[in-house]
Amino acid sequence: MAEAPSDRSTVKRYAERATYDRAAVHAVLDAGLVAHVGLRTDRGYPVVIPMVYGRRGGELLLHGSAASRLLRNARVPSVEVCATVTLVDGLVVARSTYNTDLLYRSVVVIGEAIEVRDLDEKRHGLEAMVDHLIPGRNADARQPTEKELRSTMLLRLPLTEASAKVRTGWPIDEEEDLALPVWAGVVPFRTVYDPPLPDPDLVHPVEPPPYLSPYAGP
Amino acid sequence: MAEAPSDRSTVKRYAERATYDRAAVHAVLDAGLVAHVGLRTDRGYPVVIPMVYGRRGGELLLHGSAASRLLRNARVPSVEVCATVTLVDGLVVARSTYNTDLLYRSVVVIGEAIEVRDLDEKRHGLEAMVDHLIPGRNADARQPTEKELRSTMLLRLPLTEASAKVRTGWPIDEEEDLALPVWAGVVPFRTVYDPPLPDPDLVHPVEPPPYLSPYAGP
Repeated sequence: MAEAPSDRSTVKRYAERATYDRAAVHAVLDAGLVAHVGLRTDRGYPVVIPMVYGRRGGELLLHGSAASRLLRNARVPSVEVCATVTLVDGLVVARSTYNTDLLYRSVVVIGEAIEVRDLDEKRHGLEAMVDHLIPGRNADARQPTEKELRSTMLLRLPLTEASAKVRTGWPIDEEEDLALPVWAGVVPFRTVYDPPLPDPDLVHPVEPPPYLSPYAGP
Repeated sequence: MAEAPSDRSTVKRYAERATYDRAAVHAVLDAGLVAHVGLRTDRGYPVVIPMVYGRRGGELLLHGSAASRLLRNARVPSVEVCATVTLVDGLVVARSTYNTDLLYRSVVVIGEAIEVRDLDEKRHGLEAMVDHLIPGRNADARQPTEKELRSTMLLRLPLTEASAKVRTGWPIDEEEDLALPVWAGVVPFRTVYDPPLPDPDLVHPVEPPPYLSPYAGP
């Protein structure tokens, strides 16, 4: 089992649910769509901003205007952030209210986010992001112009200090509660994708592309 | 339309999607399950922790061990946090990769989180949390003992400085892209609940309670 890469990325609570294994971290990140990115504002208080992201190898690419503005205002090359991705997989219906819980997978990444300024790097970063959100879309959507790339605010965050935490299984009830005449178990969740809805402004009566078909519902 | 309660809770980006209306903020919070709570650690860097929560009127109740530990270690009565809840409602499939987006609803709350220490208050807080996660469960699950209440770490966060942001509708494409021969539209997401799975340790062959039936799938 992989070791925690640093003290601050070591999971303290329910440590037995934690892993620092690269593949496990990547799997959660690849399954999520939104990262909640925490950063300290110039006035000291923390803000948490939902951001879309992509992954390129051991790096997360964050679409972050607020963070980028912060970097520009502070005239620093990088900012310390914490990016957390959580997927809720179900309800844990325990016999006691105290042990009520969720099934979940989460990843916490702590590190220095660096603004991407090079236009080619931005292009690849935007590609990685679109690949993550809508795999296949890069092949037929219009590619970004130079002007668009210039106004894209992109951060890269190394996945060096990352941990994953996964809660699966059954309620964890007290021994003496097991015989209580109350139902216990889990309720699994799933995200389903309804059929694509065409933009009313669609000029050509084109069909949704095949790469949207996994989204056509269960 | 409600005004922003403070400068720091004013939405700057896509401000036209923002609202400070109490009912809109509550609606997003009530539909979510996990808040991503950002706080500054004693060593300065921010951490973002996923927490389950409940709402009681104009107050959020956070189940927050890390934040509570921070308060205890620092021996302070409150800590500045930012709690963000995001619901992803779909993909926005624009004609250009640059305008690729998500449909979402999000709420950002900034404020002083105060640790709840009074046992009765904790009891009510835990009830609010369970009511939020599994409405109806408080009626038949075992209620917390005093020992459990003592080890429950609960924070309350006023919803005074809160904003909601909602992205609905269609892709926002450039005028000159509208005639491109590429499909555009949205792919709506939904969370579905699969049938409850009984705990293998269930002693009595009880049926899942009726309040879990909305979870029985679409």
